[in-house]
Amino acid sequence: MAKKPKDNRPGARLPKGLRDIEAAEIRMQTAMLSNIREVYESYGFEPLETPAFEYTDALGKFLPDSDRPNEGVFSFQDEDEQWLSLRYDMTAPLARYVAENFDRLPKPFRRYATGPVWRNEKPGPGRFRQFTQFDADTVGTDSVAADAEMCMLAADTMEALGIPRGDYVIKVNNRKVLDGIMEAAGISGEDNAGRRLTVLRAIDKLDRLGLAEVERLLGEGRLDESGDFTKGAGLGADAIATISAFINPAKDLKAHVAGLAELLKDSAIGQEGRLELEQIAELVAAAGYSDRVRIDPSVVRGLEYYTGPVFEAELTFEVTGEDGKPVRFGSVGGGGRYDNLVARFTGKTVPATGFSIGVSRLQAALTALGRSLGSSVPGPVVVLVMDRDRLADYQKMAQRLRNAGIRAEMYLGTSGMKAQMKYADKRGSPCVIIQGSDERDRGEVQIKDLIEGALAAQSIADNKEWKEARPAQFSVSEDALVEEVRKVLARHFS
Amino acid sequence: MAKKPKDNRPGARLPKGLRDIEAAEIRMQTAMLSNIREVYESYGFEPLETPAFEYTDALGKFLPDSDRPNEGVFSFQDEDEQWLSLRYDMTAPLARYVAENFDRLPKPFRRYATGPVWRNEKPGPGRFRQFTQFDADTVGTDSVAADAEMCMLAADTMEALGIPRGDYVIKVNNRKVLDGIMEAAGISGEDNAGRRLTVLRAIDKLDRLGLAEVERLLGEGRLDESGDFTKGAGLGADAIATISAFINPAKDLKAHVAGLAELLKDSAIGQEGRLELEQIAELVAAAGYSDRVRIDPSVVRGLEYYTGPVFEAELTFEVTGEDGKPVRFGSVGGGGRYDNLVARFTGKTVPATGFSIGVSRLQAALTALGRSLGSSVPGPVVVLVMDRDRLADYQKMAQRLRNAGIRAEMYLGTSGMKAQMKYADKRGSPCVIIQGSDERDRGEVQIKDLIEGALAAQSIADNKEWKEARPAQFSVSEDALVEEVRKVLARHFS
Repeated sequence: MAKKPKDNRPGARLPKGLRDIEAAEIRMQTAMLSNIREVYESYGFEPLETPAFEYTDALGKFLPDSDRPNEGVFSFQDEDEQWLSLRYDMTAPLARYVAENFDRLPKPFRRYATGPVWRNEKPGPGRFRQFTQFDADTVGTDSVAADAEMCMLAADTMEALGIPRGDYVIKVNNRKVLDGIMEAAGISGEDNAGRRLTVLRAIDKLDRLGLAEVERLLGEGRLDESGDFTKGAGLGADAIATISAFINPAKDLKAHVAGLAELLKDSAIGQEGRLELEQIAELVAAAGYSDRVRIDPSVVRGLEYYTGPVFEAELTFEVTGEDGKPVRFGSVGGGGRYDNLVARFTGKTVPATGFSIGVSRLQAALTALGRSLGSSVPGPVVVLVMDRDRLADYQKMAQRLRNAGIRAEMYLGTSGMKAQMKYADKRGSPCVIIQGSDERDRGEVQIKDLIEGALAAQSIADNKEWKEARPAQFSVSEDALVEEVRKVLARHFS
Repeated sequence: MAKKPKDNRPGARLPKGLRDIEAAEIRMQTAMLSNIREVYESYGFEPLETPAFEYTDALGKFLPDSDRPNEGVFSFQDEDEQWLSLRYDMTAPLARYVAENFDRLPKPFRRYATGPVWRNEKPGPGRFRQFTQFDADTVGTDSVAADAEMCMLAADTMEALGIPRGDYVIKVNNRKVLDGIMEAAGISGEDNAGRRLTVLRAIDKLDRLGLAEVERLLGEGRLDESGDFTKGAGLGADAIATISAFINPAKDLKAHVAGLAELLKDSAIGQEGRLELEQIAELVAAAGYSDRVRIDPSVVRGLEYYTGPVFEAELTFEVTGEDGKPVRFGSVGGGGRYDNLVARFTGKTVPATGFSIGVSRLQAALTALGRSLGSSVPGPVVVLVMDRDRLADYQKMAQRLRNAGIRAEMYLGTSGMKAQMKYADKRGSPCVIIQGSDERDRGEVQIKDLIEGALAAQSIADNKEWKEARPAQFSVSEDALVEEVRKVLARHFS
């Protein structure tokens, strides 16, 4: 009943912006997730898993004044025609969960969550439409101690992943301070909401573009290298000067933060933000994190919903890119305070703060740094099939090894000796087990140490000599199989 | 800029058939996945992660003669109007991956994969539209040794999860044998394809309905308790007798398998299947798994794509259900040989075999069995906030505990002592740390052992007496905080 080949066969290809993840990368990710989990647990966060999709309205992803979901999410209709969307972050589902279960949750509620999220956006190099996040959030407290804790958690996580102190920094800012600066620059009020967003977006680009280009984006606009023009916020010279003074990275940081009091003196919200920043700095210092957590006025965070402190975890080391030029990875995580998410459902403001790690991005950075967390799993020992009538015997050998805790398999193909050796090589096997009829009659097996063999092969040029020396291949009694394989493994993986 | 409450707020609710998974269940699932992974790795399988959705045609999920995706999957269109679907199993994406990367893969290719899958089906009690599977597949070999290995892998997995030998069985059958029986019953050939499917579905219900009812389904049909009529396969008395003899569970199994040779003597495919079953039995016996892996002629497996051996992992123990009646969990995993999946893409037949565990279902069974893998994580030590001006001090204490590897947090809410104690209780805290101004002046902290306290409270009836005794609450020097908390933890969790 085999199907006939069809002319219109489907192509075996992935949708754009998606990718397969193979063994070495998965092993590393598993190790990373485990290390991150340990840090989050140590701070008292509890795991929560919400499903991959939710009602589109519960995620807050309908287009304004429309029943069509936003373009940025993947959406489909249930059989009762209600719109569903794949989650694009972990925070929107958390808000739904908290609103749904509010009364029975401990308050404050601390939860962590990890898993894939999906964005229906244009993919690019290193930019995928499915990627993994690892979030911690504290819901139900407006204490800045909760924000300070997020910064410490972020720092501890970087170190748990093997990033040395000095190679990362946790930057902190406050949206209220930014709002205060907007007031000082004369763009407060509802009428200027759109303009403020343009200003925030411009500030957010400081790292990448530098101060002069950001000033253009605050003014008339900017022509980029490709010839595209980005319209600016249209601010006047005074306003630009005020904002520029505030974000100027050349300034001495301590003096700068102290100077905020003067700059924000006419803005109540600005003063509130400044005080919060000071409190965070104090708490962070008391816990001994001042060298890793730093106030930085240029941190904005893209999302519009932040209402107070915002954080960003940034890698500061450089690696050499493929083109030979130094590359900085920059932001690998961030978060902040968002006090209005639960109110969407209940009308009641529930203060919350959170931090989210971009696991896939951080993994790419760690790989570039030469870290290979958890990737040292040896390939399986392969029991070769020398005689197809004796499969049961070979399988028993593999089973004996497995029972002793050694990764092992019998070769399951139908090819000859040479192809079997090639297979073992491809699998990264530390050694293969060989038992032809001669060995069987003597009650022996041969163990061929492939790692040792590869080393020996490098130093022996002559093929005949190599064959005669049979480097790293030896016979042992069948009874001693497990013990002898253990010795080979200990030689290479201890 | 807080949003005003709207009258048309979205409801905080989950789409039907989906659920949130909370801490205890996640911890257990994490432990389960880790145990299963260890077994799969020990057999030499390598992890692979494919994305959550694929092109609908690559999953083989278009309705026949239509460009509309099948109703059973969740589907949506990309911006170029191509249809995408959430994966409904792990095998279809594997087939796409193998077809796409065939040349560079080791052959046979052994991979494992775990993650959620989605089915657009009617949900019911214990039946969700998102659930977790854990699969192993060997692609590129037609050796029955690969099938035998799947059965052993399944048995090892059950035991790694703490299911005692005797409480589970791995059942094996062969589709070719079933095809042979169909021939013997006179329903071979293309014309009878639909009828054969009806027969397979009927046989599949043997466990649940018993032989007499299955015979009705083989004949005219069956009226169930609710009054619904299921149309039967419409076989004659002889054909029913042939199939019934074959699946009759009362028969002696060994004699039965031996008798297959006679029953299938006129069916080439039936004989082929019988030989495969015998080989599997032999391999399984040699490895010492005969007590756990058993041939069972009634195993069918629902999916239509199986072409040879089929397996089913079944739990055989009974637990008492909520209604006081005994409940059997039945199947928690299964699989088999499918030789035509890759051919859909390439036209080239690539033999493959696999086994899939229903993790969510198995977890429910383990919970009923009273197993609680990995669920013994203690709640965090809570440092109470006695004086809001001293947050930095309290946070430092929490930090000292965390640095010593102890789960700890500072209370982040704004409530008083009583609410803080209630919070600690709700979090399952083993103890709380208390430092008011008196203790601070003496350089001390109080540790209140909540577990001990709860026990003591049970035995002390008088409230006044209880308050005076202050059971399980004691002062220690601030320097000895970590050490003393360790002692409390050791008392309860060692």
